[in-house]
Amino acid sequence: MDLTNVSQAKVFNGWHKQYQHTSSVLHCDMRFAIFLPPHASAAQPVPVLYWLSGLTCTDENFMQKAAAFQKAAELGIAIVAPDTSPRGEAVPDDVDQSYDFGLGAGFYLNATQEPWKTHYQMYSYVVDELPGLIEANFPVTSKRSVAGHSMGGHGALTIGIKNPEKYASISAFSPICHPSIVPWGEKAFRHYLGEDKALWKEYDAVELIKAHNVTTPILVDQGDADGFLDDQLKPETLQQAAKENNVPLELRIQPGYDHSYFFIQTFINDHLAFHASQLLND
Amino acid sequence: MDLTNVSQAKVFNGWHKQYQHTSSVLHCDMRFAIFLPPHASAAQPVPVLYWLSGLTCTDENFMQKAAAFQKAAELGIAIVAPDTSPRGEAVPDDVDQSYDFGLGAGFYLNATQEPWKTHYQMYSYVVDELPGLIEANFPVTSKRSVAGHSMGGHGALTIGIKNPEKYASISAFSPICHPSIVPWGEKAFRHYLGEDKALWKEYDAVELIKAHNVTTPILVDQGDADGFLDDQLKPETLQQAAKENNVPLELRIQPGYDHSYFFIQTFINDHLAFHASQLLND
Repeated sequence: MDLTNVSQAKVFNGWHKQYQHTSSVLHCDMRFAIFLPPHASAAQPVPVLYWLSGLTCTDENFMQKAAAFQKAAELGIAIVAPDTSPRGEAVPDDVDQSYDFGLGAGFYLNATQEPWKTHYQMYSYVVDELPGLIEANFPVTSKRSVAGHSMGGHGALTIGIKNPEKYASISAFSPICHPSIVPWGEKAFRHYLGEDKALWKEYDAVELIKAHNVTTPILVDQGDADGFLDDQLKPETLQQAAKENNVPLELRIQPGYDHSYFFIQTFINDHLAFHASQLLND
Repeated sequence: MDLTNVSQAKVFNGWHKQYQHTSSVLHCDMRFAIFLPPHASAAQPVPVLYWLSGLTCTDENFMQKAAAFQKAAELGIAIVAPDTSPRGEAVPDDVDQSYDFGLGAGFYLNATQEPWKTHYQMYSYVVDELPGLIEANFPVTSKRSVAGHSMGGHGALTIGIKNPEKYASISAFSPICHPSIVPWGEKAFRHYLGEDKALWKEYDAVELIKAHNVTTPILVDQGDADGFLDDQLKPETLQQAAKENNVPLELRIQPGYDHSYFFIQTFINDHLAFHASQLLND
């Protein structure tokens, strides 16, 4: 598969690079970003943290705003950030062009409904196609972890829980914990997945915890000044499900913090260290 | 003077806040951002680093992309980021709406030419009006340093050199060192200041070094993969002038780094420590 390099910048002695490629599962051209720490090489490949961003984001938000590279360089971890939906003129968008559905809002699932199902296959893209590309083209190992924010926190939890053999650890900032019962999730799932709520459970972290024997360690940070906390995020539902099913979840409520990247940059180093403890423990 | 708070977010136990106010020297409404470190209070006021951004930027670029808050919080330094030009419907812009002149490109000078001189008075705004506002409304001391990037590096150098009693230290990333002889500077100076090049010297760091007895410590970082290095930035002219006039300049050429915020975030902690060594040495 062809990768086209579209930017590169040295940062903390490593590299931030953006690439475009044609996605066979999304049927469109996609861009992703990768941070490669110093000394990553074929002789010294590094593990990869996949970062899934939230509504309206692209591959750029985390890479520009999260202040993650100093620590990732020190730990020797690559970070890959995909886009948040398929893109391009051929890709259908919400008729209202709302921010919470359609372009920029792929919800990391495989759509089953028309007109979405041709392109909106972000679950397969993130779990299969993108790691295949990354591991074929960059000096990385097959050790992976997954993290994300908000819609991307939902993505990290669901993808990590469903693929314990592929991800050593899972973390999230301000995740949509129980999408089946909140406005963002209900809207997206109804359009992408249809009215059969049995299928919704396949993309709902609280439901997946009940259905799987989860042993992957999970770290979640949530600010208590987050305006979406009560209506959209509901971390208490995740904590309750984790407790009832003996899931190794650490949920930290951070006083005074909101939903922004200022919150993420404050605690990203803890997340990187958490993932490193799983990725580098051989 | 009235300040209107337009956003606030907790970050590294401190606060990032944005304010709007009516500027009497710019004759328009302006927005600035401030980072206040933890524990800044009337009883424990903190010194202020003024950050001047480059072409096309607003108060947001540095605050979102520079990854400066962890270190600033640790050191106990506030950071203030103004906009890069006057703004608003009444403010004239370049007829071509180019990125390097007019809105987003105030060059931190006081324009003398029509139609610019009514609003484009960024020098007085940054040196007098804004610090007055900051020191009247926030828990800060009157100790100040100044730093900036590209056009803002030019601003930091010229403002710092001309006001040694007001700024304890000066630093810059990729500054326009000798604007009178490069395309960005010539275009801006011709429009804002007219054809009399004697006036240009008042806003040219190389010329100011020759005219002043500079004792303020200066730190400059410059990437050698910066696409603007040879045509627009010319750090060698600054180094030569500093050498000939015994100016305490440290110019560091950083191999492989470009003109982006990825470069800035890599070395911002060095700059913060440099300023702290001057601001906190009582």
